[in-house]
Amino acid sequence: MKVNGKSYRTIWPTKTGRTVEIIDQTRFPHAFEIVELRSVADVARAIKTMQVRGAPLIGATAAYGVCFAMDADPSEQALDDACAALLATRPTAVNLRWALDVMRRAVLPLHPDLRSEKAWQVAARICDEDVAINMAIGMHGLEIIRRIAETKGPNAPVNVLTHCNAGWLATVDWGTATAPVYMAHDSGIPVHVWVDETRPRNQGAFLTAWELGHHGVPHTVIADNAGGHLMQHGEVDVVIVGTDRTTANGDVCNKIGTYLKALAARDCGVPFYVALPSPTIDFTISDGLVDIPIEERSGSEVSHITGRTGAGEVHTVEIVAAGSNVANPAFDVTPARLVTGLITERGIVEPTRAALAAAFPERVAGA
Amino acid sequence: MKVNGKSYRTIWPTKTGRTVEIIDQTRFPHAFEIVELRSVADVARAIKTMQVRGAPLIGATAAYGVCFAMDADPSEQALDDACAALLATRPTAVNLRWALDVMRRAVLPLHPDLRSEKAWQVAARICDEDVAINMAIGMHGLEIIRRIAETKGPNAPVNVLTHCNAGWLATVDWGTATAPVYMAHDSGIPVHVWVDETRPRNQGAFLTAWELGHHGVPHTVIADNAGGHLMQHGEVDVVIVGTDRTTANGDVCNKIGTYLKALAARDCGVPFYVALPSPTIDFTISDGLVDIPIEERSGSEVSHITGRTGAGEVHTVEIVAAGSNVANPAFDVTPARLVTGLITERGIVEPTRAALAAAFPERVAGA
Repeated sequence: MKVNGKSYRTIWPTKTGRTVEIIDQTRFPHAFEIVELRSVADVARAIKTMQVRGAPLIGATAAYGVCFAMDADPSEQALDDACAALLATRPTAVNLRWALDVMRRAVLPLHPDLRSEKAWQVAARICDEDVAINMAIGMHGLEIIRRIAETKGPNAPVNVLTHCNAGWLATVDWGTATAPVYMAHDSGIPVHVWVDETRPRNQGAFLTAWELGHHGVPHTVIADNAGGHLMQHGEVDVVIVGTDRTTANGDVCNKIGTYLKALAARDCGVPFYVALPSPTIDFTISDGLVDIPIEERSGSEVSHITGRTGAGEVHTVEIVAAGSNVANPAFDVTPARLVTGLITERGIVEPTRAALAAAFPERVAGA
Repeated sequence: MKVNGKSYRTIWPTKTGRTVEIIDQTRFPHAFEIVELRSVADVARAIKTMQVRGAPLIGATAAYGVCFAMDADPSEQALDDACAALLATRPTAVNLRWALDVMRRAVLPLHPDLRSEKAWQVAARICDEDVAINMAIGMHGLEIIRRIAETKGPNAPVNVLTHCNAGWLATVDWGTATAPVYMAHDSGIPVHVWVDETRPRNQGAFLTAWELGHHGVPHTVIADNAGGHLMQHGEVDVVIVGTDRTTANGDVCNKIGTYLKALAARDCGVPFYVALPSPTIDFTISDGLVDIPIEERSGSEVSHITGRTGAGEVHTVEIVAAGSNVANPAFDVTPARLVTGLITERGIVEPTRAALAAAFPERVAGA
């Protein structure tokens, strides 16, 4: 997508073909800074410090880590060491493990002299496949937005509400929940996005607002509390969010607060869609409320926030009364009954066990 | 309630009987500072700059403004001027207008020599009546908490979730939504409060957490997004919130985000109560969604926040991507169908036109 008028992915090989560049996401929204990665250690640090974040982008970055390892030493030992080091950066990230498995299976059978070249090919393919999946999600979601646009006046924008950042910055390109929005915007359908701030880490205000703004998509940041009121008053035509994990029966585990928006959408008759690449579906679990453990993160994410002063200095300030306890569950589960449809790379799928199994039969068989 | 172990109201006459002291609420949560008010100008400034806030406390403070006016010059002209100046500080505050009307009607018929003394008496009565109303709300709400406590283990706390600050600091004492909590705590019922941060002005994290902490009530601050998840997992026994305005049929207009918590409570089978002094009921309106205009406040409340650095400095920082639009509706309407009961000074009232009219027949006749 575009930044300052120029098209970018979130990760790309440099001209030498032997290093990659990323956008340092820890500097958002206050700075746009490109960082070059040249080694396994660079990649591990970028993932660990969240210079890159979002499951698909973490996987893609880790893949390039294997390339650097094979460039330096194409031995099996070096491959094992690199995979172990990279996996340890975010041990619970499903895409990270998947990407490392793909890389390992691709290079290990080859003669060491051939491993480096193969690694770079496969890492590029992982990136391209992510882009292709997100474009497919975007095309299917675009039809939802197009149908809504047809019911509105010719210049009335379709108002999309989203939560957190299931955006371009979390993937290699396009994003998941944002892909339909970018495609609608790029094809001339007037679209406006209500961007939930997304406390406590403010991914909406920091990341989604930043990327929509740079690509030129009209949007408005709101407190997470405001979405219900906007839906009550007809100001939201459709909700589209992402998901970290989806169960076999269509329950959706996404950033904390998603469930509240799903309830409001149901109460106000607003369609509620979840955009997801099919690898986030976990066919081994059914009841999201019972089967998905919710990560409890540091209370400091609630009690402290980093922003920029009028003088341009970046400060971290405390915003909770001193001495108060703080709790910080990071995700919640939206039951399938509140979901209108799942926007996947294979089309819009009903959030039911039967429909998901029919859309991804090879995944069920493998479970 | 207690601060540093000592009992306070939010406003009180000094020993001279000719000035009053308040707690400067603009300094929360980082400092506890008492400010003396000696003149109409002091009072006007205190209200305008939100050193005092919350409808009942604003009314009480304005009443003392009339005392200062009558001390300085007990003429009708001085009374008119003072009332006009005070009303202009927060023109939409219902309690402010009400308190000034009460003061005016009490002193105007008297000989100028008697007006000052009468003013101080009536201002004290306004304060005492607010305390009495809140204590009555507290006693009725206490029974709700007591009944829940009886269903739990002997040492299991009753978990109350609240939104914004309908607390001690918004009234002269006890608060509205917090009164049942303080009474439960003071009578030895173990109680724990989930305090919604309450973006964008953070009244929960700044004020409710501060006052509960000083009174010794166990509590935990959470992002507004977290409440639904906690209710899904049985971590909330009852929701108690305040209200700025209640319609004749029981629709409740309260701080933005209240509606989302009411939806979650309904979905999870958690009782949802609204604590209110009966003056907040507006018997002239019925459908809250149609009849109550929602104040749109400055976007800077969302995009900027003030907190304290580790070095103890207080800074205001920007926390939204530069150039993004921001919207900031301040209130939302929770339809009566989502409200379990209204905790009033006359008991728990069903949120229906018939029940409200039966509980406050004199108000309906006056409409």
